[in-house]
Amino acid sequence: MKARVDITLKNGVLDPQGKAIQHALGSLGFDGVDGVRQGKVIELDLAETDKSKAEATLKDMCEKLLANTVIEDYKIEVL
Amino acid sequence: MKARVDITLKNGVLDPQGKAIQHALGSLGFDGVDGVRQGKVIELDLAETDKSKAEATLKDMCEKLLANTVIEDYKIEVL
Repeated sequence: MKARVDITLKNGVLDPQGKAIQHALGSLGFDGVDGVRQGKVIELDLAETDKSKAEATLKDMCEKLLANTVIEDYKIEVL
Repeated sequence: MKARVDITLKNGVLDPQGKAIQHALGSLGFDGVDGVRQGKVIELDLAETDKSKAEATLKDMCEKLLANTVIEDYKIEVL
């Protein structure tokens, strides 16, 4: 079973990497970019076949390893 | 107009970061993880209001800066 976890910085947390991209886009002549935020996407291939069990496991993985829940939000999607 | 660009490594390109996550999940007792790939997600806030123009601009941004098209695939989504 394939799954996908999106990890993004919480609102209000500074994102210097996003700022750097925004600045670089401006330097390349792309105007009208009002904001950029960069996050991570993790694609997992799980042996589990039960969707709800897979979701519970993924939540556990996010809390324990994948996301820093102090500054990051995560979104789980089982495909 | 908000947009979202997913950047993932192409199939066949080694992903040591994904392998490290897979290994760490195993060490934490999460069995049955057959594969992990890590990518990036970039959320942009554009001044452009026309959807097709925004998509064309985003494609241009990906080709020129956001993705390394030799080893990475990108997927554009205008929200």
